[in-house]
Amino acid sequence: MSALEPLLEFLSIPSVSTDPAHKEDVRKAALWLAERLRERGFRTELHETPLHPILYAERLLDPKAPTVLVYGHYDVQPPDPLELWENPPFVPTVREGRVYARGASDDKGQLWAHVAALEDLPGRVNVKFLVEGEEEIGSPSLLPFVREHREKLQADVVLISDGAMFAPLTPTLTYGLRGLAYLEVRLKGARRDLHSGSFGGVAPNPIQAMGWILSKLKDEKTGRILVPGLYDRVRPVSEEEKRLWPPLDEEALRRELGVEVLPGEEGYSPLERLWTRPTLDPNGIWGGYQGEGSKTVIPAEAGFKVSLRLVPDQDPEEVASQVEAYLREICPPGYTMEILRLHGGRPVLTDPFSPPMRLMAKALEEVWGRPPVYTREGGTIPVVAELQDALHAPVVLLGLGLPDDNLHAPNEKFDLINLEKGIATLRRFYELLAQGG
Amino acid sequence: MSALEPLLEFLSIPSVSTDPAHKEDVRKAALWLAERLRERGFRTELHETPLHPILYAERLLDPKAPTVLVYGHYDVQPPDPLELWENPPFVPTVREGRVYARGASDDKGQLWAHVAALEDLPGRVNVKFLVEGEEEIGSPSLLPFVREHREKLQADVVLISDGAMFAPLTPTLTYGLRGLAYLEVRLKGARRDLHSGSFGGVAPNPIQAMGWILSKLKDEKTGRILVPGLYDRVRPVSEEEKRLWPPLDEEALRRELGVEVLPGEEGYSPLERLWTRPTLDPNGIWGGYQGEGSKTVIPAEAGFKVSLRLVPDQDPEEVASQVEAYLREICPPGYTMEILRLHGGRPVLTDPFSPPMRLMAKALEEVWGRPPVYTREGGTIPVVAELQDALHAPVVLLGLGLPDDNLHAPNEKFDLINLEKGIATLRRFYELLAQGG
Repeated sequence: MSALEPLLEFLSIPSVSTDPAHKEDVRKAALWLAERLRERGFRTELHETPLHPILYAERLLDPKAPTVLVYGHYDVQPPDPLELWENPPFVPTVREGRVYARGASDDKGQLWAHVAALEDLPGRVNVKFLVEGEEEIGSPSLLPFVREHREKLQADVVLISDGAMFAPLTPTLTYGLRGLAYLEVRLKGARRDLHSGSFGGVAPNPIQAMGWILSKLKDEKTGRILVPGLYDRVRPVSEEEKRLWPPLDEEALRRELGVEVLPGEEGYSPLERLWTRPTLDPNGIWGGYQGEGSKTVIPAEAGFKVSLRLVPDQDPEEVASQVEAYLREICPPGYTMEILRLHGGRPVLTDPFSPPMRLMAKALEEVWGRPPVYTREGGTIPVVAELQDALHAPVVLLGLGLPDDNLHAPNEKFDLINLEKGIATLRRFYELLAQGG
Repeated sequence: MSALEPLLEFLSIPSVSTDPAHKEDVRKAALWLAERLRERGFRTELHETPLHPILYAERLLDPKAPTVLVYGHYDVQPPDPLELWENPPFVPTVREGRVYARGASDDKGQLWAHVAALEDLPGRVNVKFLVEGEEEIGSPSLLPFVREHREKLQADVVLISDGAMFAPLTPTLTYGLRGLAYLEVRLKGARRDLHSGSFGGVAPNPIQAMGWILSKLKDEKTGRILVPGLYDRVRPVSEEEKRLWPPLDEEALRRELGVEVLPGEEGYSPLERLWTRPTLDPNGIWGGYQGEGSKTVIPAEAGFKVSLRLVPDQDPEEVASQVEAYLREICPPGYTMEILRLHGGRPVLTDPFSPPMRLMAKALEEVWGRPPVYTREGGTIPVVAELQDALHAPVVLLGLGLPDDNLHAPNEKFDLINLEKGIATLRRFYELLAQGG
């Protein structure tokens, strides 16, 4: 497939946005993409930000034709743990119809489908691209950019592929996303590391304290988050909406995860928990001696990262404040707690049957031979809420990845059939749009 | 002082037992010490082990005279972080009556006092030395050596100086040590790392599970260890024994640790908690993303190390089994738990008023001008229980260091007054012993 070669090039750039050591690589990815868009007739602008540049590009053919704004991101998650990768994460490798690399599915492969689809496109549609390099760190620069440039970004449809199909060979349209609140907690006890023999019995132990704190964040029996007020704004879900959803193969999900139970909030089905309920997960923890063997230390410091997925109508700032207040309340005496708010994102709910959604449904059915299923997603794309607010245009969330793509994990991959059919779907969508629906 | 010059030589040998790069240096320290003992009339034997040699030496003057066995170690901790040292750690430097060097107090300085004390000793006492080079890595070779050579090691008294005086200018006799049980716990959830958006709500989270587990190991309110049966064998401490103890300056301890409270088991004083009560401390924890910024991962694995300090009559193997059984009981469903037992050591309690302790008390009082205080210690010296069992001889723990000697830390030091008075005390002890007490 001719679209594959450039994608392999794109994937070989280690554009890890969270790691300052990769700052130049992130920029390199932006410049690479700009070049590909210029090759397709786009005018490009690189907007500098305090961190990584925002790439804006436009190909305006006809002021009377409809305008599509494509959003995507060219940055990727860190690749660790490296030792679990079968090929180096930035040496993209094709095996059995899939390309393996960090960013293959999230989001370079999906974004690339949108760029590749524009080659020799018949029909007149104006296309704009808004591509950022800070999605994996919470889009700090993009949100103000959108607010500031709403004129420039004006469009009739917003297209975003940064998600997954519900299952293989199952065309999928997504009408909801969860939001995010991410915090880091650092806990200090004594002024220095202590010998556990000489001081065990009188010394604060920040690791033990983290245990007490974590156990109070989520109830072990019910799976409910214990932060006061957290559920106050959670919107109930209608039976009618639930009837839209495809059935979930729980057995297959258990098999995929290699687990015997799917733990979660009591009283809700797995799909409800994934799509319509807030969740809380610690994402990292550290403290004391992590090497081989034993060291009898009581560490002076320890810490953890914790994030919450949010649903309409929760607000990330409000939730972060609720969590912070609760953390300070449950911090045991004798410890100093430092809390960093790392990033947030608002939840999104769109109309599953807006006109562009109906067009995309048609294109999907023609390409895949079956109508799409309608889903929400558990993940977060912070800019979506912002684009909805700023542009008042319907958003089409067309996930081209798959649930087993290993996002944010070793051996991330992207199925080449999804690349191929994704490109075909988008080309058909543009044709239908140019024809006036 | 003529005893100082050789000690500076001893301290200049970087005998870091844990670092393979220093293997020859460790051997050099053993050979150096053997030479000093031969100069004093000892016959020496270097026993090879898989790692570092055990030095045995004896000076047997009279089969009818009492026999003393001195234990010590010639290996030292690694010196890092080097940048925090005021002099290079293996360039021993004397400032304000103290010698600064790695190993100054632990244990070369204290061990050297025992060797120096034997110069031209009047009175007939048989003396044996058992000196290892693996104390800082858990004495793997010494424990089997003691069991195998109990005939050779036979003695009427065991003398050990590898500890600290309770406070400066405060002669101290120690009659108890805590034991140790050290475990590592690894927890697995899903088969791979997962995206917290895509799977938050159905995925096991080993970090969260560790929180629940840690919170059940120790009660936050009472500070009690919650492992069933753990306190069953804990021997109560008599009021009579507590009256032996020096008063603890809690304010000074809080200042030293930089804390406002000294957390610990409810209902017991700090000294009781440090010396006579078992404690449990997680010593390390890891899982998920530990780097800068945010990563929205639900890790497949996480783990922690936890150790317990034990008191008479707890047994490390039994305690490790109790902890292991309890950990398996409180492991939430959906997680796989792997438990490693890292190492253990038995607690020790000796008779504070055994005949050799009374002799040493007399010697201390004559040299320091005040009677000794009686302490236990919170730390563990695994070989002591082994020597007690193998030799059935009373053990005298004569700490010559000080609590602020910076053991295992930068700027380790040894007060020269402790070297001088330590040598004088030991010489007086041998005289009293030769005189029949």
